[in-house]
Amino acid sequence: MLEELKKRVYEANMLLPKYGLVTFTWGNVSEIDRESGLFVIKPSGVDYDLLTPDDMVVMDLNGNKVEGRYRPSSDTPTHLELYKAFPEIGGIVHTHSSYATSWAQAGRSIPCYGTTHADYIYGEVPCLRCLTKEEIDEAYEENTGHLIVNEFKRMGKDVKAVPAVLCKNHGPFTWGKDAHEAVHNAVVLEEVAKMAYRAETINPRIQPAPQELQDKHYYRKHGVNAYYGQN
Amino acid sequence: MLEELKKRVYEANMLLPKYGLVTFTWGNVSEIDRESGLFVIKPSGVDYDLLTPDDMVVMDLNGNKVEGRYRPSSDTPTHLELYKAFPEIGGIVHTHSSYATSWAQAGRSIPCYGTTHADYIYGEVPCLRCLTKEEIDEAYEENTGHLIVNEFKRMGKDVKAVPAVLCKNHGPFTWGKDAHEAVHNAVVLEEVAKMAYRAETINPRIQPAPQELQDKHYYRKHGVNAYYGQN
Amino acid sequence: MLEELKKRVYEANMLLPKYGLVTFTWGNVSEIDRESGLFVIKPSGVDYDLLTPDDMVVMDLNGNKVEGRYRPSSDTPTHLELYKAFPEIGGIVHTHSSYATSWAQAGRSIPCYGTTHADYIYGEVPCLRCLTKEEIDEAYEENTGHLIVNEFKRMGKDVKAVPAVLCKNHGPFTWGKDAHEAVHNAVVLEEVAKMAYRAETINPRIQPAPQELQDKHYYRKHGVNAYYGQN
Amino acid sequence: MLEELKKRVYEANMLLPKYGLVTFTWGNVSEIDRESGLFVIKPSGVDYDLLTPDDMVVMDLNGNKVEGRYRPSSDTPTHLELYKAFPEIGGIVHTHSSYATSWAQAGRSIPCYGTTHADYIYGEVPCLRCLTKEEIDEAYEENTGHLIVNEFKRMGKDVKAVPAVLCKNHGPFTWGKDAHEAVHNAVVLEEVAKMAYRAETINPRIQPAPQELQDKHYYRKHGVNAYYGQN
Repeated sequence: MLEELKKRVYEANMLLPKYGLVTFTWGNVSEIDRESGLFVIKPSGVDYDLLTPDDMVVMDLNGNKVEGRYRPSSDTPTHLELYKAFPEIGGIVHTHSSYATSWAQAGRSIPCYGTTHADYIYGEVPCLRCLTKEEIDEAYEENTGHLIVNEFKRMGKDVKAVPAVLCKNHGPFTWGKDAHEAVHNAVVLEEVAKMAYRAETINPRIQPAPQELQDKHYYRKHGVNAYYGQN
Repeated sequence: MLEELKKRVYEANMLLPKYGLVTFTWGNVSEIDRESGLFVIKPSGVDYDLLTPDDMVVMDLNGNKVEGRYRPSSDTPTHLELYKAFPEIGGIVHTHSSYATSWAQAGRSIPCYGTTHADYIYGEVPCLRCLTKEEIDEAYEENTGHLIVNEFKRMGKDVKAVPAVLCKNHGPFTWGKDAHEAVHNAVVLEEVAKMAYRAETINPRIQPAPQELQDKHYYRKHGVNAYYGQN
Repeated sequence: MLEELKKRVYEANMLLPKYGLVTFTWGNVSEIDRESGLFVIKPSGVDYDLLTPDDMVVMDLNGNKVEGRYRPSSDTPTHLELYKAFPEIGGIVHTHSSYATSWAQAGRSIPCYGTTHADYIYGEVPCLRCLTKEEIDEAYEENTGHLIVNEFKRMGKDVKAVPAVLCKNHGPFTWGKDAHEAVHNAVVLEEVAKMAYRAETINPRIQPAPQELQDKHYYRKHGVNAYYGQN
Repeated sequence: MLEELKKRVYEANMLLPKYGLVTFTWGNVSEIDRESGLFVIKPSGVDYDLLTPDDMVVMDLNGNKVEGRYRPSSDTPTHLELYKAFPEIGGIVHTHSSYATSWAQAGRSIPCYGTTHADYIYGEVPCLRCLTKEEIDEAYEENTGHLIVNEFKRMGKDVKAVPAVLCKNHGPFTWGKDAHEAVHNAVVLEEVAKMAYRAETINPRIQPAPQELQDKHYYRKHGVNAYYGQN
């Protein structure tokens, strides 16, 4: 069932250690098949070295396991809420990648300091508040999803233009049109977080890049007038 | 004698260079067989490249070498005191891993700034005082063990919930139910120390993660209501 | 056509991931054949893993593609302006290498703090202003080239003695007598940017290296009295 | 001639890239044969990838090349002065390793913040002044050697107990009883420089490790009462 998708999700998960984004099992990738309304996600706490495509877990959007010998990632309810709220999203990644998580622990959004950031993410990467005790006790992972959804709506942010978020004291989620693009954005986020960290150390009075430069780079790669790459 | 255990301790020692936790011979791992009251530890100052399972040294809890052609690690008396005082501990690691040692050199406990920390360690990683001149002169390594034991008792800390400590101006010790888990915790500690360092640079007015979030993540992975992983 | 040159430019491009200077496709190298007035450059947005010498794009100095199945790098107009203005330059590199880009994002020139810098770059690595909205809208990449040319002329800097520049909120360009030397200088710049970052953290009141030491090291490796190396 | 020594010096040089201490050709190792008064050193500016034992250059203590097809390292006169002044030294290393060089660029001695440092280096790693214009113009590399010799004598430092020095705005030299030990000390210095950098960031009011702890660790590994390792 969904063998192709399981293979793709498996491969996307294996990119996390390849790109240095995870220690042990601290990460997970999923991708959704919009036609069937099923998504495939990594099992919880299984070593990357031991993972196979067959270990992937198939879930429906009501949170029922449809196939798989393992429990799904403990973050599955967060993925599920994002898939339900944002039909533009096809793949989701959660990691504890080092620099992005450090920004999340610091409780700060990552300003757009340059074109590396602007090429992929429009404006700052928002850092959301912590969940309240009530939200944590009631349904931690699901409410993490609700918070991301509500805050993006409140801020008027487009999930296609801002494919990354930081959860305070926790870590990043990224997404994309599929699992592979979501991993790509996780790599971009880590690199952007690293360079923003260093840029602030070099110049404590640093300002974000001018809006016109951000626009230029973002629209050079996205939208109808894009001219970067071969498409 | 204890061939299985020697092999396991050897393999756990070899994980230290694999995870980038040691330079040269700056680290050691041990594991105890509680039935016989014997523990196995790395020999002192032997290159990781040359190490074999047969080089491991078997010690009893009175500090006598029971088997082995080499001298045991110079830190053996510290391991011994921890095994005597804490029956819950089955394996111990000492390294000079870079970020954890930097916190130890700075003389600061590592606050819990996020869920990566809270997933494994309940509350801050304590940094203990230096030994006094008298303690150093009398029995340096043994008194290091006594200090850890006494301070954990004084602070009311449970060694299962806080599997790591920093010795001021020296470096970290970690432990676990066996050698492998102790190494796992050494990796976690280094990652946590790195992200705490960066988070403080990003936000000098940073505060620890809210207690309810720390509790949620710790108890998601530990105790009777744990639901992370496959067990 | 220009098969030798395409091979050399291909190989120089492949050095960027080898030296850790690029993530994904964030970099490009070109080299010019001054006799024919043609230069060869990497195609835009093609994975390094998939690149072959035949994928390289041949351009003339009027900005026309002379050969190649792909679009040239989006930064091609910048390369072109530099080749037109500086006949001493034979190869050009653009990357988003982490430390150099962090200085660019911080909007600061890199002072010469030591002999590693002075061995290759005479005086500071200048960080130029951002383009204006008008310059961006009119012809972003071409005007980036104009800015570099005009600023080097205004500052009286010799492109042979200062083979590197930072574009504010963007990243570095380096150059050399050919593509290979330009890559060499990109590696030097990244290392110099890293050590300047760290040196400022260690000593916030740091001063540039004395002029006589800068001169000694630069002229030990360059000019008629050079005595470093085997030539 | 001195084939054994050339092989050893070659191998010691090849350890520099292995341990990540050099970029390109920025480092050199030598070792002296005290009986013949000849020392062997890396040639100047030759790629590590291309180096063979036969490329090593044999020098006498008057600065004459005795054998070798290449010019010796441009830093040869510094090595020579150290060998002449300090009969205890058998091997010397110069690198631009990143953290040690950053301290040199910052013009600061590295305080002893912990036992990693104290295990190998007794007290701080001194950072010497820059050479004067006169000293540079007269004989730069030779006068670098004189400065190290004179400053160690003035400070009453024993080169066996302090096997490392920083030359301001330049970089480190380390030494040992042979080339291999000198490389070992170069690795130690880089690690110590890195952890001191981080420890100061974590605690800006940090103090050096207590003298009694420094003594304990140094004498645990050195002198008649040493008990670390197998000898």
